[in-house]
Amino acid sequence: MTTRYAKKDFPVSKVRRFLEPGPIVLVSSAWKGEANIMTMGWHMVMEFEPSRVGCYVWDANHSFEMIRRSKECVINVPTVDMAAAVVGIGNCSGRDVDKFEKFKLTAAPAKKVKAPLIADCYASFECRLVDSSLIKKYSLFVLEVVKAHVATSPKFPRTLHYRGDGLFMLSGPTVARYRKGFKPQNL
Amino acid sequence: MTTRYAKKDFPVSKVRRFLEPGPIVLVSSAWKGEANIMTMGWHMVMEFEPSRVGCYVWDANHSFEMIRRSKECVINVPTVDMAAAVVGIGNCSGRDVDKFEKFKLTAAPAKKVKAPLIADCYASFECRLVDSSLIKKYSLFVLEVVKAHVATSPKFPRTLHYRGDGLFMLSGPTVARYRKGFKPQNL
Repeated sequence: MTTRYAKKDFPVSKVRRFLEPGPIVLVSSAWKGEANIMTMGWHMVMEFEPSRVGCYVWDANHSFEMIRRSKECVINVPTVDMAAAVVGIGNCSGRDVDKFEKFKLTAAPAKKVKAPLIADCYASFECRLVDSSLIKKYSLFVLEVVKAHVATSPKFPRTLHYRGDGLFMLSGPTVARYRKGFKPQNL
Repeated sequence: MTTRYAKKDFPVSKVRRFLEPGPIVLVSSAWKGEANIMTMGWHMVMEFEPSRVGCYVWDANHSFEMIRRSKECVINVPTVDMAAAVVGIGNCSGRDVDKFEKFKLTAAPAKKVKAPLIADCYASFECRLVDSSLIKKYSLFVLEVVKAHVATSPKFPRTLHYRGDGLFMLSGPTVARYRKGFKPQNL
Protein backbone atom coordinates (compact mmCIF):
# COMPACT_ATOMS: atom_id res chain seq x y z
CA MET A 1 0.00 0.00 0.00
CA THR A 2 2.88 2.42 0.64
CA THR A 3 6.34 3.16 -0.60
CA ARG A 4 8.98 0.87 0.83
CA TYR A 5 12.00 2.82 1.87
CA ALA A 6 15.61 1.78 1.44
CA LYS A 7 17.04 1.95 4.94
CA LYS A 8 20.36 2.07 6.69
CA ASP A 9 21.56 1.62 10.24
CA PHE A 10 21.28 4.81 12.25
CA PRO A 11 22.97 5.72 15.57
CA VAL A 12 20.60 4.84 18.41
CA SER A 13 21.79 7.90 20.35
CA LYS A 14 20.30 10.13 17.63
CA VAL A 15 16.77 8.79 17.29
CA ARG A 16 15.54 12.04 18.87
CA ARG A 17 15.86 13.45 15.36
CA PHE A 18 12.71 11.55 14.45
CA LEU A 19 10.93 11.11 17.80
CA GLU A 20 11.38 14.46 19.54
CA PRO A 21 9.26 16.35 16.96
CA GLY A 22 6.37 14.27 18.29
CA PRO A 23 5.05 12.10 15.43
CA ILE A 24 2.40 9.52 16.00
CA VAL A 25 4.10 6.11 15.80
CA LEU A 26 3.14 2.51 15.13
CA VAL A 27 4.37 0.11 17.79
CA SER A 28 4.80 -3.49 16.68
CA SER A 29 5.12 -6.38 19.08
CA ALA A 30 5.21 -10.18 19.10
CA TRP A 31 4.27 -12.74 21.71
CA LYS A 32 3.63 -16.47 21.45
CA GLY A 33 3.57 -16.57 17.66
CA GLU A 34 1.28 -13.57 17.30
CA ALA A 35 2.28 -10.13 15.98
CA ASN A 36 0.38 -6.91 16.58
CA ILE A 37 0.50 -3.17 15.92
CA MET A 38 -0.80 -0.23 17.92
CA THR A 39 -0.97 3.49 17.17
CA MET A 40 0.72 5.62 19.83
CA GLY A 41 0.99 9.35 20.38
CA TRP A 42 2.23 9.53 23.96
CA HIS A 43 5.99 9.06 24.01
CA MET A 44 9.08 11.05 24.94
CA VAL A 45 12.83 10.88 24.59
CA MET A 46 14.37 10.38 28.05
CA GLU A 47 18.09 9.99 27.43
CA PHE A 48 20.72 9.81 24.67
CA GLU A 49 23.04 7.11 26.00
CA PRO A 50 21.52 4.74 26.71
CA SER A 51 18.97 5.74 24.11
CA ARG A 52 15.89 5.80 26.30
CA VAL A 53 12.28 6.44 25.32
CA GLY A 54 9.24 6.56 27.59
CA CYS A 55 5.90 5.33 26.22
CA TYR A 56 2.42 5.39 27.68
CA VAL A 57 0.42 2.29 26.72
CA TRP A 58 -3.15 1.90 27.94
CA ASP A 59 -3.68 -1.36 29.77
CA ALA A 60 -6.84 -1.91 27.67
CA ASN A 61 -4.71 -2.23 24.53
CA HIS A 62 -4.02 -5.73 23.28
CA SER A 63 -0.38 -4.66 22.82
CA PHE A 64 -0.05 -3.81 26.51
CA GLU A 65 0.39 -7.42 27.65
CA MET A 66 2.33 -8.39 24.53
CA ILE A 67 4.98 -5.73 25.18
CA ARG A 68 4.98 -6.28 28.94
CA ARG A 69 5.47 -10.04 28.62
CA SER A 70 7.90 -10.11 25.67
CA LYS A 71 9.76 -7.07 27.10
CA GLU A 72 10.32 -5.90 23.53
CA CYS A 73 8.72 -3.86 20.76
CA VAL A 74 9.56 -1.81 17.68
CA ILE A 75 8.67 1.88 17.38
CA ASN A 76 7.97 2.58 13.70
CA VAL A 77 7.58 6.09 12.24
CA PRO A 78 4.87 6.21 9.54
CA THR A 79 4.63 8.98 6.95
CA VAL A 80 1.63 11.04 5.88
CA ASP A 81 0.75 8.65 3.03
CA MET A 82 0.01 6.00 5.68
CA ALA A 83 -2.64 8.11 7.45
CA ALA A 84 -5.52 5.75 6.67
CA ALA A 85 -3.61 2.79 8.11
CA VAL A 86 -2.53 4.81 11.17
CA VAL A 87 -6.16 5.67 11.94
CA GLY A 88 -7.43 2.19 11.08
CA ILE A 89 -4.87 0.51 13.32
CA GLY A 90 -5.96 2.73 16.20
CA ASN A 91 -9.60 1.85 15.57
CA CYS A 92 -9.46 -1.94 15.83
CA SER A 93 -7.95 -4.48 18.21
CA GLY A 94 -5.36 -7.17 17.65
CA ARG A 95 -7.70 -9.41 19.63
CA ASP A 96 -9.97 -9.50 16.58
CA VAL A 97 -7.76 -9.00 13.53
CA ASP A 98 -4.27 -9.52 12.13
CA LYS A 99 -3.35 -5.89 11.54
CA PHE A 100 -0.44 -6.62 9.21
CA GLU A 101 -2.86 -8.47 6.96
CA LYS A 102 -5.81 -6.10 7.33
CA PHE A 103 -3.73 -3.01 6.52
CA LYS A 104 -1.45 -4.75 3.98
CA LEU A 105 1.70 -3.92 5.91
CA THR A 106 4.93 -5.84 5.55
CA ALA A 107 6.51 -7.40 8.62
CA ALA A 108 10.29 -7.68 8.36
CA PRO A 109 12.60 -9.41 10.81
CA ALA A 110 14.33 -7.20 13.36
CA LYS A 111 17.99 -7.70 14.31
CA LYS A 112 17.90 -7.63 18.09
CA VAL A 113 14.30 -8.25 19.08
CA LYS A 114 11.62 -10.74 18.08
CA ALA A 115 8.99 -8.08 17.37
CA PRO A 116 8.77 -7.36 13.63
CA LEU A 117 9.74 -4.16 11.87
CA ILE A 118 7.01 -2.53 9.77
CA ALA A 119 8.91 -2.28 6.49
CA ASP A 120 6.47 0.31 5.07
CA CYS A 121 7.47 2.90 7.67
CA TYR A 122 10.16 5.57 7.29
CA ALA A 123 12.08 4.42 10.35
CA SER A 124 12.01 1.53 12.81
CA PHE A 125 13.56 1.52 16.26
CA GLU A 126 14.04 -1.84 17.96
CA CYS A 127 13.40 -1.48 21.69
CA ARG A 128 13.83 -3.47 24.88
CA LEU A 129 11.75 -2.82 27.98
CA VAL A 130 14.33 -1.81 30.57
CA ASP A 131 12.08 -0.71 33.43
CA SER A 132 8.62 -2.10 34.06
CA SER A 133 8.23 -0.62 37.55
CA LEU A 134 6.18 2.36 36.33
CA ILE A 135 3.69 0.39 34.26
CA LYS A 136 1.21 -0.23 37.04
CA LYS A 137 1.10 3.34 38.34
CA TYR A 138 1.57 5.33 35.13
CA SER A 139 1.22 2.87 32.22
CA LEU A 140 4.76 4.05 31.49
CA PHE A 141 7.06 1.68 29.62
CA VAL A 142 10.69 2.77 29.84
CA LEU A 143 12.33 1.44 26.67
CA GLU A 144 15.89 1.38 25.38
CA VAL A 145 16.42 1.67 21.63
CA VAL A 146 18.94 -1.05 20.78
CA LYS A 147 18.93 -0.83 16.98
CA ALA A 148 17.70 1.86 14.57
CA HIS A 149 16.81 1.60 10.87
CA VAL A 150 16.17 4.85 9.01
CA ALA A 151 15.30 5.57 5.37
CA THR A 152 18.14 7.02 3.32
CA SER A 153 15.77 9.40 1.54
CA PRO A 154 14.06 11.82 2.07
CA LYS A 155 16.28 13.32 4.76
CA PHE A 156 13.26 14.24 6.85
CA PRO A 157 9.93 12.40 6.71
CA ARG A 158 6.51 14.02 6.35
CA THR A 159 4.88 12.84 9.57
CA LEU A 160 1.51 12.85 11.32
CA HIS A 161 1.13 14.44 14.75
CA TYR A 162 -2.04 13.74 16.66
CA ARG A 163 -4.08 16.41 18.48
CA GLY A 164 -6.95 14.21 19.70
CA ASP A 165 -10.53 14.36 18.39
CA GLY A 166 -9.55 13.04 14.95
CA LEU A 167 -7.31 16.03 14.22
CA PHE A 168 -3.84 15.53 12.82
CA MET A 169 -1.11 18.12 12.48
CA LEU A 170 1.08 17.43 9.47
CA SER A 171 4.79 18.14 9.72
CA GLY A 172 6.16 21.06 7.75
CA PRO A 173 9.71 21.75 6.58
CA THR A 174 12.83 21.27 8.70
CA VAL A 175 15.07 24.32 8.96
CA ALA A 176 18.63 24.70 10.18
CA ARG A 177 18.87 28.44 10.22
CA TYR A 178 19.35 28.56 13.98
CA ARG A 179 22.39 26.35 13.86
CA LYS A 180 24.93 29.17 13.95
CA GLY A 181 26.26 29.73 17.40
CA PHE A 182 24.05 26.98 18.70
CA LYS A 183 25.01 25.00 21.77
CA PRO A 184 23.20 21.71 21.33
CA GLN A 185 24.25 20.48 24.74
CA ASN A 186 21.99 23.10 26.25
CA LEU A 187 18.89 22.20 24.32
CA MET B 1 9.11 41.23 20.27
CA THR B 2 6.13 39.03 19.47
CA THR B 3 2.40 39.20 19.03
CA ARG B 4 0.49 39.04 22.27
CA TYR B 5 -2.44 36.71 21.97
CA ALA B 6 -5.88 37.22 23.43
CA LYS B 7 -6.49 34.10 25.50
CA LYS B 8 -9.30 32.22 27.12
CA ASP B 9 -9.57 29.43 29.65
CA PHE B 10 -9.23 26.01 28.08
CA PRO B 11 -10.21 22.60 29.52
CA VAL B 12 -7.14 21.09 31.20
CA SER B 13 -8.22 17.61 30.04
CA LYS B 14 -7.68 18.73 26.43
CA VAL B 15 -4.20 20.23 26.52
CA ARG B 16 -3.03 17.22 24.45
CA ARG B 17 -4.34 19.22 21.49
CA PHE B 18 -1.28 21.45 21.80
CA LEU B 19 1.27 19.20 23.53
CA GLU B 20 0.84 15.80 21.86
CA PRO B 21 2.04 17.08 18.45
CA GLY B 22 5.41 17.55 20.18
CA PRO B 23 6.27 21.27 20.09
CA ILE B 24 9.27 22.62 21.88
CA VAL B 25 8.00 24.51 24.92
CA LEU B 26 9.22 27.22 27.26
CA VAL B 27 8.95 26.29 30.93
CA SER B 28 8.73 29.20 33.34
CA SER B 29 9.33 28.85 37.06
CA ALA B 30 9.73 31.00 40.16
CA TRP B 31 11.55 30.48 43.42
CA LYS B 32 12.57 32.90 46.17
CA GLY B 33 11.75 36.03 44.20
CA GLU B 34 13.51 34.89 41.05
CA ALA B 35 11.82 33.87 37.78
CA ASN B 36 13.40 31.78 35.06
CA ILE B 37 12.65 30.16 31.68
CA MET B 38 14.01 27.01 30.08
CA THR B 39 13.53 25.53 26.61
CA MET B 40 12.27 21.94 26.71
CA GLY B 41 11.67 19.31 24.02
CA TRP B 42 11.30 16.16 26.11
CA HIS B 43 7.73 15.94 27.37
CA MET B 44 4.73 13.67 26.98
CA VAL B 45 1.05 13.58 27.81
CA MET B 46 0.44 10.87 30.43
CA GLU B 47 -3.25 11.13 31.28
CA PHE B 48 -6.41 13.16 30.55
CA GLU B 49 -8.01 13.31 34.00
CA PRO B 50 -6.07 14.28 35.96
CA SER B 51 -4.36 16.15 33.14
CA ARG B 52 -0.88 14.73 33.57
CA VAL B 53 2.31 15.60 31.69
CA GLY B 54 5.76 14.05 32.08
CA CYS B 55 8.80 16.28 31.57
CA TYR B 56 12.48 15.49 31.48
CA VAL B 57 14.57 18.28 33.03
CA TRP B 58 18.35 17.97 33.17
CA ASP B 59 19.71 18.40 36.67
CA ALA B 60 22.32 20.81 35.25
CA ASN B 61 19.58 23.27 34.31
CA HIS B 62 19.05 26.20 36.66
CA SER B 63 15.31 25.52 36.37
CA PHE B 64 15.73 22.00 37.76
CA GLU B 65 16.03 23.09 41.40
CA MET B 66 13.54 25.93 40.95
CA ILE B 67 10.81 23.56 39.78
CA ARG B 68 11.76 20.83 42.22
CA ARG B 69 11.66 23.16 45.21
CA SER B 70 8.67 25.30 44.26
CA LYS B 71 6.80 22.18 42.99
CA GLU B 72 5.29 24.34 40.26
CA CYS B 73 5.95 25.63 36.77
CA VAL B 74 4.17 26.85 33.64
CA ILE B 75 4.49 25.08 30.28
CA ASN B 76 4.22 27.76 27.57
CA VAL B 77 3.82 26.98 23.86
CA PRO B 78 5.80 29.43 21.68
CA THR B 79 5.09 29.98 17.99
CA VAL B 80 7.48 30.05 15.05
CA ASP B 81 7.94 33.83 15.24
CA MET B 82 9.60 33.29 18.64
CA ALA B 83 12.30 30.98 17.27
CA ALA B 84 15.20 33.31 18.08
CA ALA B 85 14.06 33.59 21.70
CA VAL B 86 13.49 29.82 21.95
CA VAL B 87 17.06 29.16 20.83
CA GLY B 88 18.52 32.00 22.88
CA ILE B 89 16.77 30.82 26.05
CA GLY B 90 18.23 27.36 25.53
CA ASN B 91 21.70 28.81 25.07
CA CYS B 92 22.09 30.74 28.31
CA SER B 93 21.50 30.09 31.99
CA GLY B 94 19.20 31.75 34.48
CA ARG B 95 22.20 31.72 36.82
CA ASP B 96 23.70 34.53 34.72
CA VAL B 97 20.80 36.44 33.20
CA ASP B 98 17.17 37.43 33.70
CA LYS B 99 15.69 35.73 30.64
CA PHE B 100 12.42 37.69 30.68
CA GLU B 101 14.47 40.89 30.42
CA LYS B 102 17.10 39.58 27.99
CA PHE B 103 14.52 38.21 25.54
CA LYS B 104 11.94 40.99 26.12
CA LEU B 105 9.27 38.57 27.21
CA THR B 106 6.29 39.56 29.33
CA ALA B 107 5.69 37.75 32.61
CA ALA B 108 2.02 37.65 33.57
CA PRO B 109 0.56 36.38 36.83
CA ALA B 110 -0.79 32.83 36.81
CA LYS B 111 -4.03 31.92 38.57
CA LYS B 112 -3.08 28.81 40.53
CA VAL B 113 0.71 28.78 40.71
CA LYS B 114 3.36 31.37 41.58
CA ALA B 115 5.41 30.73 38.43
CA PRO B 116 4.67 33.40 35.79
CA LEU B 117 2.93 32.88 32.48
CA ILE B 118 4.87 33.97 29.40
CA ALA B 119 2.23 36.26 27.87
CA ASP B 120 3.94 36.25 24.45
CA CYS B 121 3.25 32.52 23.97
CA TYR B 122 0.25 30.97 22.22
CA ALA B 123 -0.75 28.91 25.24
CA SER B 124 0.25 28.59 28.89
CA PHE B 125 -0.44 25.59 31.11
CA GLU B 126 -0.10 26.07 34.85
CA CYS B 127 1.34 22.92 36.42
CA ARG B 128 1.93 21.43 39.84
CA LEU B 129 4.57 18.79 40.49
CA VAL B 130 2.55 15.78 41.65
CA ASP B 131 5.26 13.12 41.77
CA SER B 132 8.92 13.83 42.44
CA SER B 133 9.93 10.20 43.00
CA LEU B 134 11.25 9.74 39.45
CA ILE B 135 13.40 12.86 39.36
CA LYS B 136 16.53 11.26 40.80
CA LYS B 137 16.51 8.19 38.55
CA TYR B 138 15.05 9.59 35.32
CA SER B 139 15.02 13.40 35.69
CA LEU B 140 11.29 12.88 35.16
CA PHE B 141 8.93 15.46 36.63
CA VAL B 142 5.34 14.23 36.70
CA LEU B 143 3.18 17.34 36.47
CA GLU B 144 -0.54 18.00 36.65
CA VAL B 145 -1.96 20.79 34.52
CA VAL B 146 -4.25 22.74 36.87
CA LYS B 147 -5.15 25.69 34.65
CA ALA B 148 -4.86 26.27 30.89
CA HIS B 149 -4.84 29.53 28.92
CA VAL B 150 -5.05 29.27 25.12
CA ALA B 151 -5.15 31.91 22.39
CA THR B 152 -8.54 32.40 20.78
CA SER B 153 -6.96 32.77 17.34
CA PRO B 154 -5.50 31.18 15.26
CA LYS B 155 -7.21 27.88 16.01
CA PHE B 156 -3.91 26.00 15.68
CA PRO B 157 -0.52 27.58 16.32
CA ARG B 158 2.49 27.37 14.02
CA THR B 159 4.97 25.64 16.31
CA LEU B 160 8.64 24.63 16.47
CA HIS B 161 9.60 20.97 16.92
CA TYR B 162 13.19 20.21 17.77
CA ARG B 163 15.26 17.46 16.10
CA GLY B 164 18.58 18.10 17.88
CA ASP B 165 21.72 19.51 16.21
CA GLY B 166 20.12 22.93 15.67
CA LEU B 167 17.43 21.53 13.37
CA PHE B 168 13.80 22.52 13.84
CA MET B 169 10.78 20.98 12.19
CA LEU B 170 8.05 23.56 11.65
CA SER B 171 4.45 22.50 12.06
CA GLY B 172 2.31 22.25 8.96
CA PRO B 173 -1.48 22.38 8.60
CA THR B 174 -3.95 20.55 10.84
CA VAL B 175 -6.41 18.30 9.02
CA ALA B 176 -9.60 16.65 10.21
CA ARG B 177 -10.28 14.44 7.23
CA TYR B 178 -9.86 11.26 9.27
CA ARG B 179 -12.54 12.27 11.73
CA LYS B 180 -15.31 10.27 10.11
CA GLY B 181 -15.85 6.95 11.78
CA PHE B 182 -13.07 7.75 14.19
CA LYS B 183 -13.06 6.31 17.68
CA PRO B 184 -11.01 8.77 19.68
CA GLN B 185 -11.08 6.57 22.77
CA ASN B 186 -8.89 4.12 20.91
CA LEU B 187 -6.22 6.57 19.89
